[in-house]
Amino acid sequence: MPKGQPTVIPDDGLTTRQRRNRPLVFVHTGPGKGKSTAAFGLALRAWNQGWPIGVFQFVKSAKWKVGEENALKVLGASGEGGPVVWHKMGEGWSWVQRDAQLDNEQAAKEGWEQVKRDLAAETHRLYVLDEFAYPLHWGWIDVDEVIGVLRDRPGTQHVVITGRNAPEKLVEFADLVTEMTKVKHPMDAGQKGQKGIEW
Amino acid sequence: MPKGQPTVIPDDGLTTRQRRNRPLVFVHTGPGKGKSTAAFGLALRAWNQGWPIGVFQFVKSAKWKVGEENALKVLGASGEGGPVVWHKMGEGWSWVQRDAQLDNEQAAKEGWEQVKRDLAAETHRLYVLDEFAYPLHWGWIDVDEVIGVLRDRPGTQHVVITGRNAPEKLVEFADLVTEMTKVKHPMDAGQKGQKGIEW
Repeated sequence: MPKGQPTVIPDDGLTTRQRRNRPLVFVHTGPGKGKSTAAFGLALRAWNQGWPIGVFQFVKSAKWKVGEENALKVLGASGEGGPVVWHKMGEGWSWVQRDAQLDNEQAAKEGWEQVKRDLAAETHRLYVLDEFAYPLHWGWIDVDEVIGVLRDRPGTQHVVITGRNAPEKLVEFADLVTEMTKVKHPMDAGQKGQKGIEW
Repeated sequence: MPKGQPTVIPDDGLTTRQRRNRPLVFVHTGPGKGKSTAAFGLALRAWNQGWPIGVFQFVKSAKWKVGEENALKVLGASGEGGPVVWHKMGEGWSWVQRDAQLDNEQAAKEGWEQVKRDLAAETHRLYVLDEFAYPLHWGWIDVDEVIGVLRDRPGTQHVVITGRNAPEKLVEFADLVTEMTKVKHPMDAGQKGQKGIEW
């Protein structure tokens, strides 16, 4: 039910409207399906509000999530909702020189540097940092630094972070955390992924 | 990781390809966020494959999920991916006469009747039965009948059912079940929903 009543009225000196429009940090974590798909579903709402959307895919394979990418690019170019910028680590970030031989850790760090620049410039209103929980979990990017940057980000910029094993500190810091739990998956019954469903 | 290896090779007489392309029933349930958003994220992949998509919103309010609706309609009309048909219980189903005074139970049943007709006619390749778990949970629609219809549906038609409290029988029957668990929600901290995020 999307329009419930809060159970607590915090003593934070904000009006209901100010509190309502506070920028949010979302974390979608856990072993189940739907972490990224829910993030891209959220992007549809943001697009509909005309918000500029920035997607940063912190994954190695450039083929992943091509369905979501094509859909959001068509939406972004439709002239009806907000614009969409889609950055992929898998193909090499667009701002990194093609001949730069980055390993995965370096590439993840490069992605985070761009996120920081975009947050400082208030480039987007919704950021999807897809699979960003992994470089945090692996210690490639410092979670304390990420929390500090997110806490101090200017304006009204919402940030969604997806991926298994989101660090506990990030979960503590985030405003909205959903854990996707796998109850049943066709791979358990010997079925491989299929196009249109898994990618 | 979308392209893992199954841990079991079932003795079902199917080739890997046949098994891979089997039509699937998904259930997104649980108290957390992301059940519907993940379903609409999945629809982006289906759209990208050019699959016809049918959405049935089993909710009372016509305003809900207007972001997803607008986005999927723009995509469906873009001429690039699959077509999208969006049915809303909240405004009265399009095939039901405007002056018919249906209560919620009757309206939910009318929706299910149309889903059955579309499945029989193989109208869509992906069905999003949004919030359909509720009329099942409340006993308005018989879960055994639903399972029977889904089991016997012809062709390659994938079906996603969302909503809290999905009946145990449906969970048993489904191929892929994800439970969204609420870890933290801003409403717990006194923050109401905001546009672009909740709708």
